[in-house]
Amino acid sequence: MRLLFLLPPVMVAALGGSLSVSAQTAAPQRIYSGAPVTGRTQYIDPRIGSEGLGRVFIGPSCPFGMVKPSPDCTESPNSGWLPLPEQVNGFAQTHVSGTGGGPKYGNILVMPSTGGLDCLQPIAHRRWETILPGYYATEFEENGLQTEITTAQRASFYRFTYPADSLKTLLFDCGFYLGRQPVPDGREAQQFVGSEIQVLSDHEVCGYSRIRGGWNNGRAYTVYFFAETDVPFTDFITFKDGRTSHEAAQYDSQQPTGAVVRFPASARQVQLKIGISFLSSLKARQNAREGIPHWSFSDTHRDVLQQWETLLERIDIAPDTPVAQRRMFYTGLYHTMLMPVDRSGENPLWVDPVPYYDDFYAIWDTYRTSTPLITLIDPRRETDIVRSLINIWKRDGYLPDARSGNCNGRTQGGSNAEIVIADAFVKGLDGIDYEQGLQAMLKDATVPPGGNEEAEGRGGLVPYLQLGYIPYGIPRAGNRTIEYSFCDYAIATVAKGLGKEELAQRYLRQSGNWKNLWRADYEHEGVKGFILPRDAQGRWLDRVPYGHSEVQRPTFVYTPVTFEGPWYTPWWDMFFYEASSWEYSLSIPHDVPGLIGQCGGEEAFDHRLDTFFDKGFFNVNNEPSFLSPCLYHWIGRPDKSSDRVLAIIDRHYNDSPSGLPGNDDSGAMSSWLAFHMTGLYPNAGHDYYLIHTPVLTATTFHLTEGKDFTIRAEGLSAKNRYIQSATLNGQDYPCSTLRHADLTAGGTLVLKMGPKPGHWGTKLFN
Amino acid sequence: MRLLFLLPPVMVAALGGSLSVSAQTAAPQRIYSGAPVTGRTQYIDPRIGSEGLGRVFIGPSCPFGMVKPSPDCTESPNSGWLPLPEQVNGFAQTHVSGTGGGPKYGNILVMPSTGGLDCLQPIAHRRWETILPGYYATEFEENGLQTEITTAQRASFYRFTYPADSLKTLLFDCGFYLGRQPVPDGREAQQFVGSEIQVLSDHEVCGYSRIRGGWNNGRAYTVYFFAETDVPFTDFITFKDGRTSHEAAQYDSQQPTGAVVRFPASARQVQLKIGISFLSSLKARQNAREGIPHWSFSDTHRDVLQQWETLLERIDIAPDTPVAQRRMFYTGLYHTMLMPVDRSGENPLWVDPVPYYDDFYAIWDTYRTSTPLITLIDPRRETDIVRSLINIWKRDGYLPDARSGNCNGRTQGGSNAEIVIADAFVKGLDGIDYEQGLQAMLKDATVPPGGNEEAEGRGGLVPYLQLGYIPYGIPRAGNRTIEYSFCDYAIATVAKGLGKEELAQRYLRQSGNWKNLWRADYEHEGVKGFILPRDAQGRWLDRVPYGHSEVQRPTFVYTPVTFEGPWYTPWWDMFFYEASSWEYSLSIPHDVPGLIGQCGGEEAFDHRLDTFFDKGFFNVNNEPSFLSPCLYHWIGRPDKSSDRVLAIIDRHYNDSPSGLPGNDDSGAMSSWLAFHMTGLYPNAGHDYYLIHTPVLTATTFHLTEGKDFTIRAEGLSAKNRYIQSATLNGQDYPCSTLRHADLTAGGTLVLKMGPKPGHWGTKLFN
Repeated sequence: MRLLFLLPPVMVAALGGSLSVSAQTAAPQRIYSGAPVTGRTQYIDPRIGSEGLGRVFIGPSCPFGMVKPSPDCTESPNSGWLPLPEQVNGFAQTHVSGTGGGPKYGNILVMPSTGGLDCLQPIAHRRWETILPGYYATEFEENGLQTEITTAQRASFYRFTYPADSLKTLLFDCGFYLGRQPVPDGREAQQFVGSEIQVLSDHEVCGYSRIRGGWNNGRAYTVYFFAETDVPFTDFITFKDGRTSHEAAQYDSQQPTGAVVRFPASARQVQLKIGISFLSSLKARQNAREGIPHWSFSDTHRDVLQQWETLLERIDIAPDTPVAQRRMFYTGLYHTMLMPVDRSGENPLWVDPVPYYDDFYAIWDTYRTSTPLITLIDPRRETDIVRSLINIWKRDGYLPDARSGNCNGRTQGGSNAEIVIADAFVKGLDGIDYEQGLQAMLKDATVPPGGNEEAEGRGGLVPYLQLGYIPYGIPRAGNRTIEYSFCDYAIATVAKGLGKEELAQRYLRQSGNWKNLWRADYEHEGVKGFILPRDAQGRWLDRVPYGHSEVQRPTFVYTPVTFEGPWYTPWWDMFFYEASSWEYSLSIPHDVPGLIGQCGGEEAFDHRLDTFFDKGFFNVNNEPSFLSPCLYHWIGRPDKSSDRVLAIIDRHYNDSPSGLPGNDDSGAMSSWLAFHMTGLYPNAGHDYYLIHTPVLTATTFHLTEGKDFTIRAEGLSAKNRYIQSATLNGQDYPCSTLRHADLTAGGTLVLKMGPKPGHWGTKLFN
Repeated sequence: MRLLFLLPPVMVAALGGSLSVSAQTAAPQRIYSGAPVTGRTQYIDPRIGSEGLGRVFIGPSCPFGMVKPSPDCTESPNSGWLPLPEQVNGFAQTHVSGTGGGPKYGNILVMPSTGGLDCLQPIAHRRWETILPGYYATEFEENGLQTEITTAQRASFYRFTYPADSLKTLLFDCGFYLGRQPVPDGREAQQFVGSEIQVLSDHEVCGYSRIRGGWNNGRAYTVYFFAETDVPFTDFITFKDGRTSHEAAQYDSQQPTGAVVRFPASARQVQLKIGISFLSSLKARQNAREGIPHWSFSDTHRDVLQQWETLLERIDIAPDTPVAQRRMFYTGLYHTMLMPVDRSGENPLWVDPVPYYDDFYAIWDTYRTSTPLITLIDPRRETDIVRSLINIWKRDGYLPDARSGNCNGRTQGGSNAEIVIADAFVKGLDGIDYEQGLQAMLKDATVPPGGNEEAEGRGGLVPYLQLGYIPYGIPRAGNRTIEYSFCDYAIATVAKGLGKEELAQRYLRQSGNWKNLWRADYEHEGVKGFILPRDAQGRWLDRVPYGHSEVQRPTFVYTPVTFEGPWYTPWWDMFFYEASSWEYSLSIPHDVPGLIGQCGGEEAFDHRLDTFFDKGFFNVNNEPSFLSPCLYHWIGRPDKSSDRVLAIIDRHYNDSPSGLPGNDDSGAMSSWLAFHMTGLYPNAGHDYYLIHTPVLTATTFHLTEGKDFTIRAEGLSAKNRYIQSATLNGQDYPCSTLRHADLTAGGTLVLKMGPKPGHWGTKLFN
């Protein structure tokens, strides 16, 4: 059964003012073939964070879904999509969400048009768009052609409504991909390797696109597809490198290929399923037919909505939560579960009875908040993800710090999959071989990746082990030193838990290595002590050289606010990755007490934090500072943490398309927000959450085994924004952290709110 | 037109005594559908070196051919084939020649049988075999079924003659591969990743096999195929993981798949083409149809014979050469040109307008003699090979020391592609970007491969650069130090030639690093000075530890004859790779004068060489000793070199199946032999050949641009085995080396032979 009705009222609200229809052509009414969007899922708005820096994926996707169809508006944007009035090149089946740097994917483009069979690049413009969870629709200005999209896990479902009196054609383009550059082997450019197309029958097309490069400079990956329509083609052409042919197949001669098919003039609506696979087009056919075993667009949409609802149901929020907050919260959860991508059974590299996930993009971004959030919502999923990480080490040699296109890379700072494993370990996730996990972590910590250090492992490991820090000159010496210290702490954590006391002690000692870059007497803006560049001889560097020229050897002043080098210096070659010393000098999540000591004690630390936020050294859109607003907890001032958190949310987050302050980085920003809205914030790799003033008056986690944990902020208002006291299961609860085990045991945490900071939370732990 | 005739007389001679036909079944006459084998090609006998250690590939192959069909006799042997009476599992399309270690390839097995459609593993035994260049035939004892095989560059051609009164079926098995092990991820085991099969019509089948691992522990590679028969199928089944089905396709669920097709009872003969490809089965179809655009088995065979003849014509030998010597010589050339494999346009990893070669297996083996021989026979081919090596560096990051399945690995000793580049450079091969080549070489020499050192680059580079040698404990410390020294010399050679004097000087200095492992006062068997283990503190080690146990720390005496460690130690972890200090201490091809100095002067060196050969420390079947028999040249005694060379050939080489003394290593042993038979022997990376007593009385190289160079040994006989004097183009030629430029200029080198060593050749160079 196909449901075809005009846009329901709930959608109109969601669409805001964009419903005004241009009068210049007689357009059909706006079609809506999707299912009703109800429950918590109605508060998902995929547009939040889609504009500005957020770069989230706006198309339909299942949780951790392999297929991510979206309009591709030029070959430039990371997520494919750009706001109106940018052109649409078509709809590709694979995208990522919230990324920066060179784009990845954008494979297997389809494009309906009213052009002839020789129209190989039909570009169009959107008159309007409908963007809903699991659903996308648009109408082309040029011809009134409407496209609707929904999706299963591994297959897209399209519904094209052509104008009555027109040619009706559909392009399949295996030569399209995002991130094409004039210099094809430019750094981070995706590069074409090969493609193939085959018209199999009067309603079936298959083929593939093979691409390499992109942000991770990865090896070639191949996206296979199988497409079928519910209306037979009356004619078709195939093409290769721009030359058309009536041959049904274009074999791979490492050139772009495609096909254009035509539907009968009588066909107003054409439905199209596209299965994709990383193994073969037969597997893609299987994925299409298994994922969508019928021709009902609305049933397919209903199914993806149900998948999201099942996950969103795990966290309930107060019934009186304002809509904007509901939208921010549930969309935050949604963004967190778009990636990594479940590709179990789709691994072209090895076969193992272990789940396979790809598109860790990047763990450096997601380990802090996305990982702990998935663990709370869906611990079995996180177990699968961790097992897949360890399996990647087993088969590929190293844990990924990031991975896409079945290829490890790039490393940003450290080897943060180690913290993901430690986080699973301290939270007691079952079904993971932690002995193997420890081996994988130790590989990072002991075997230099050599010439491959941009892809995996710990670059600069040799001097890190010899000197206890990475000397200036090795790219990202500053944050690598800091992050390896934290990763060493993660190793110590797991080793200790597994009873390997000596190993644990060794790595615990090593986890203090960040102090070796602490320049204690360096003063800036009234604050003393910063992580700063040091050379291999132990000398602190006030001026640093940049770049490699044999002729010019300029040096530049390096200070705690230095962020970028001269224009000719790649930013990944800097002392710190994407941030300044002000930020990184506060980014020691595994030893905040030690950090406070280095800073000169609690009072100095308090002053330092105030300076950091008040003078604008805090950078909201970068992950190394994620924990910084809550550092006041460690000096007994959760009220100040709360003030900072609430102010950041208030200023930088909202439920509009520009509602995320930085690249969402496959959910990193969104999960940071979602946690803070509940009043709990994790310190990844540790078994506790920091408690602070929530945005939501009540949150209930529906945990596995039927247990619930509720946080209720009694009396919370704009005025009553300070926690006066707390009870856990009715007992007084004076400390400002909650153990993960106390949360998963079920219960209720009541926060009594008041207008002024009280004395609650002066210590972190009982 | 199909030619069908009984085996011609020339073949009967080649087959020796194996023609006796078992009487137990009424077998058909031995069919021969190939073309006549004439010209120089008739002296190719693919069986030479097929038994014992040689392990050469015996099936039909074009020069550098991508398809290499052969019977697979169990899953164990490296080349697929084993001598009668071993079973035949079928005929796979991909093999390598002469390799050791874990097998690679053996993909896409076909097997004709008289079993039913449910006969998924029809094993048979051979009654006889015919093995000729470009042709293979056998008859199965069980049913009299005859199989003939010939091949194009990228497609195999089969002709099956079924018994009259039988079922007639053909198995396509995508689950077969060589080197399967009970522990699937055992080191060097090939591991199954996935497969697919599809019966496309009543005469077409396609699919693929995806495998990883093998000797180089490589990433997954995929062999696609497309097969078509000239007789339609009457029925078929497909299967997956042993379960049969009437579905035409079995998609990839990472399990073994296949199909069995049946031919009509009336069909006595069925012909089958199988194209293979590393891109797709459509490309495999293209390869089949382009490579064999007809159904003539004999025309296909004629074509492959012609390809070989065109190459063998480049070297003529004296008309009165005995048949056994002709067979040894031309089969030597043949073996040298089986690999690497030309996969231009078949690279699934990147696309570049540069040739692509795979199956460098391994350059460590082939750089010494195969590379120089190909350069002499077909310099354009060698140019393509070198360009492909440099392109692999550009795209994959490192030059291969070995490569197969589109993946670098393993390194044996050093980074010997550097010597291949230097050899091309000193011999003036055009069309190579040597500036890029130098960059590639410098990558090896400056960027440690880290955890990836088993795949590529110079393992142990950091201590090599710091200490000037690799200390004991790092695998293969001994030969790596020696080989890196030689590779450094290759860098110096190219750098100097490109006018980079300072760089050249630096690497020339570094090329003396082998001396840092020279233990000058160590005496063994009356000889002083050996390359021996040294620790990082500079201490010489008389006893060395083996292995990594934390509990047991046994040490073992290490002497110049130590070859293998205790059973629990992998041989690639030893101090030397596959050889003793006696051998490696003489393996300094880039500084023989320096070596003579270390050894105590010419007299001591002479004595040392005599001891080396007379006491059996020389190992004929290992490449590090390839140059050793000619080292007498450097002390003015080419007569002694000649004696050693001729004795080695006489004792260890012949034209029988056991005619090669060690793994042929894709032609390494064979090209060593072929060079020495001519009386010239190259020192790879240098622009000269050593002149010694040939086996052949005359050899003419037909060079490019119409020039010929002839070596004639006047009066050569078993008695007249010493060069008395020589002339080059009529001028007296007293020195014992010939410059490559003098050879390629064309001309005649006459060696006047006599019964006693004379005074010719007391110096190497003019």
